[in-house]
Amino acid sequence: LIGVTSPIGREEQVLIGVAPLADAGAEHVAYIQDARQEIDPASLRAGLVLAPTNLQLDHPAVVHPANVMDALVRLLHHFHPVAASNGIRHASAVIDATAELAPDVQVDAHAIIGARARIGAGTRIGSHVVIGEDVVIGENCRLHPRATVLDRCRIGNRVELHSGCVIGADGFRFEVIGRRLTKIPQVGIVVIEDDVEIGANTTIDRAGLSETRIGARTKIDNLVQVGHNCVIGSDCIIVSQVGIAGSCRIGRGVMIGGAASIKDHITIGDGAQIAGRSGVQHDLPAGSRVMGYPALPVKRYARFAWFYRNFDEQWERLKSALKERDSIP
Amino acid sequence: LIGVTSPIGREEQVLIGVAPLADAGAEHVAYIQDARQEIDPASLRAGLVLAPTNLQLDHPAVVHPANVMDALVRLLHHFHPVAASNGIRHASAVIDATAELAPDVQVDAHAIIGARARIGAGTRIGSHVVIGEDVVIGENCRLHPRATVLDRCRIGNRVELHSGCVIGADGFRFEVIGRRLTKIPQVGIVVIEDDVEIGANTTIDRAGLSETRIGARTKIDNLVQVGHNCVIGSDCIIVSQVGIAGSCRIGRGVMIGGAASIKDHITIGDGAQIAGRSGVQHDLPAGSRVMGYPALPVKRYARFAWFYRNFDEQWERLKSALKERDSIP
Amino acid sequence: LIGVTSPIGREEQVLIGVAPLADAGAEHVAYIQDARQEIDPASLRAGLVLAPTNLQLDHPAVVHPANVMDALVRLLHHFHPVAASNGIRHASAVIDATAELAPDVQVDAHAIIGARARIGAGTRIGSHVVIGEDVVIGENCRLHPRATVLDRCRIGNRVELHSGCVIGADGFRFEVIGRRLTKIPQVGIVVIEDDVEIGANTTIDRAGLSETRIGARTKIDNLVQVGHNCVIGSDCIIVSQVGIAGSCRIGRGVMIGGAASIKDHITIGDGAQIAGRSGVQHDLPAGSRVMGYPALPVKRYARFAWFYRNFDEQWERLKSALKERDSIP
Repeated sequence: LIGVTSPIGREEQVLIGVAPLADAGAEHVAYIQDARQEIDPASLRAGLVLAPTNLQLDHPAVVHPANVMDALVRLLHHFHPVAASNGIRHASAVIDATAELAPDVQVDAHAIIGARARIGAGTRIGSHVVIGEDVVIGENCRLHPRATVLDRCRIGNRVELHSGCVIGADGFRFEVIGRRLTKIPQVGIVVIEDDVEIGANTTIDRAGLSETRIGARTKIDNLVQVGHNCVIGSDCIIVSQVGIAGSCRIGRGVMIGGAASIKDHITIGDGAQIAGRSGVQHDLPAGSRVMGYPALPVKRYARFAWFYRNFDEQWERLKSALKERDSIP
Repeated sequence: LIGVTSPIGREEQVLIGVAPLADAGAEHVAYIQDARQEIDPASLRAGLVLAPTNLQLDHPAVVHPANVMDALVRLLHHFHPVAASNGIRHASAVIDATAELAPDVQVDAHAIIGARARIGAGTRIGSHVVIGEDVVIGENCRLHPRATVLDRCRIGNRVELHSGCVIGADGFRFEVIGRRLTKIPQVGIVVIEDDVEIGANTTIDRAGLSETRIGARTKIDNLVQVGHNCVIGSDCIIVSQVGIAGSCRIGRGVMIGGAASIKDHITIGDGAQIAGRSGVQHDLPAGSRVMGYPALPVKRYARFAWFYRNFDEQWERLKSALKERDSIP
Repeated sequence: LIGVTSPIGREEQVLIGVAPLADAGAEHVAYIQDARQEIDPASLRAGLVLAPTNLQLDHPAVVHPANVMDALVRLLHHFHPVAASNGIRHASAVIDATAELAPDVQVDAHAIIGARARIGAGTRIGSHVVIGEDVVIGENCRLHPRATVLDRCRIGNRVELHSGCVIGADGFRFEVIGRRLTKIPQVGIVVIEDDVEIGANTTIDRAGLSETRIGARTKIDNLVQVGHNCVIGSDCIIVSQVGIAGSCRIGRGVMIGGAASIKDHITIGDGAQIAGRSGVQHDLPAGSRVMGYPALPVKRYARFAWFYRNFDEQWERLKSALKERDSIP
């Protein structure tokens, strides 16, 4: 699709990587994702520019791929190839004798793999990763340093778990029995389907009895909490610091903005979009778009937000309209 | 109390575990916690059902224990016995020669136990756990993989620390001294009393000078932040992503919902209930029930929330009432 | 400046440490930071009291240093000296043969140092720390147990990284390409300048292409999320559970209160102050002071907050003013 040299300047300018448009020099590829983006012509010093087909650029080396982002991803993989598993198990790793690892599974320093765990071909286990007993992990997964998957949880194929995430800690359920807060044992598991990504230091609790489930291709950012028994559909985007309380049902293709909270036992329909910092307290039908705390449909929220932002002026108006009749401070 | 076979179907149906009512088959026990719960009779396929005494059920094997949850807990412990300490110290664990461990303390792979640490009987130290110098840990505790207890902190008996929690990182205090942000050394400790549970990736900071304290039987969920010098009473429930800033005094039996925030130096009385996502900016007397940001008494908040949810209609009413006199858009 | 004995009681009372004013006994130093602080004379049992120059105290051993906090810091360092690097590399640490460590770098148990990493003089690497490939760490840093710095990130001098923080996990960017959520490879790095402190379990994502940067002397608390491509200026204070979405530009000396959120691509001017739990959705000029969700200038927010807190009374007033004309419930 795209070469790695640029016609600018010298006859053959070697391109060494991708850089942001404003920073890119003759040795870099830059990209423009959106034809409406404002561009300072003086900043166009990149050796090669990827641009949308509908954007005319005054630059000697513009490429118009059918899809700029697709071309970008290919270029990034070209310049930064993802290492394949090297199949080496570091001498300091502790791998239980009963664990079953495909021959090419890579296990880095100080990783721990518990009894009867099964790990598929091509998977890379980073340093200090902890894999509990009876865990199942599919093929071509990547577990970054310090990712943790506790006993009996099941991870699909091509899953990426970032550093410090905890998959399968106990759910949080206590009942007062005989006047004493008593822990209800959490004996379920977490199931993570194919092509999921889980962010750094995110926590996904195991179910009380059955499964907490993260659907295929769903992407979860850092420091997110997913409570026990949640079932999250496929193709969702869940941004950092979101909290999803226990037993929620989240549909497919749901987008949840950063630091939003969802109450326990809530059902969210397919394709719903929940703005950052929203607080969802009621079920949402498919295709909903909500904002605010408590979350309201976006248009409804916008009317209140207008009042909130203009409270002083609106309050003055109310007062002056009333002042002949009554005194309201 | 309850056997592990069911009279349904075959003469002796072996029960293999507990399942949610809707999923349970003939080999499962199911439970109904609340007699008011809606039940689909077609879903009653469980081999045995635990039900409240005041609930009549059309099922051939219903048991009515005095307390359903108590029976459930016993059954779960029956099917999923909590492993006792096996007393084994893994060869890869690094245990300082001056640490004092009761003979039956279990230390898993790659755990680290610092100088002069003391650990009581029956305690299980998970893999990759870090125990600092001079730490004291009581009896029958469970530290899950990657839990961390830093220097000099003290942990009671039967405490459960989940993966990735950090007990005793420095408090966050900086003062401008000579125009430069200067760290005030944090030389206090964290004290965790008996029967406390701390969630995954939760952080509890050491005191500046004295103690941050978590009272007996208090349960803290995942990703919670407790600032330096906080004193939290006994029997509290603190749900995930709560933030409690420095030097707060939280009474006994306080419940704090998910993602709520409490300002620094706040005092919360016994038995207060703080709804999820609340922002507490003022002291709260015992028995308070608050919601919202800023937090208000629940009834007061509910009136405002009515206005917020119905803003459009109410604003139209105000405008139409005023329109003869004044124009208000 | 200050000795370590007190004239109270015995001729020579040995002082063993600093304690809070209310708890301090004859063997302790206590301090009073603010002359306006309420003081119970009966509580003045400290062997020595540091007090502001403008505060008269009825106590036999009061010292009035030019700056109480400066004196306090010196005393705390006296009683709790920060250990210098002992230069020991623990036998269980895994240090790549190509890593370059200054001779006195301390590496504790089970730490991992990747290929070609470079670490400066006096730096202490705690137990279970993970340092990725090609990481650069300056002099006199302290990495607490389980801090993690991933491949190619660069850390300045005198930086303190607390337990469980993750520096350099992938940024969160996915684009729909051919109907499929596709990860945009995150190939940039994180740069942390001199004298920065990063809290426990905080996550700072690597840039998509270039650098996520934390300016000199900036202090970040626990459980904070900093998204990819953010550039945070020097001398900022960022309190726990703050979330800063991707590509924000934060000026110098900015203060961000706990659990506040900042939307992506926002620019915050120098010296801005953002109250806890605020939600910043628009750029803020230098010196701004904002509160609320969405964030408003503090005075503007305070007017709305007055209405929110007094909604019932104000609504009654509106209704009674209107009732002759119209019925409004």
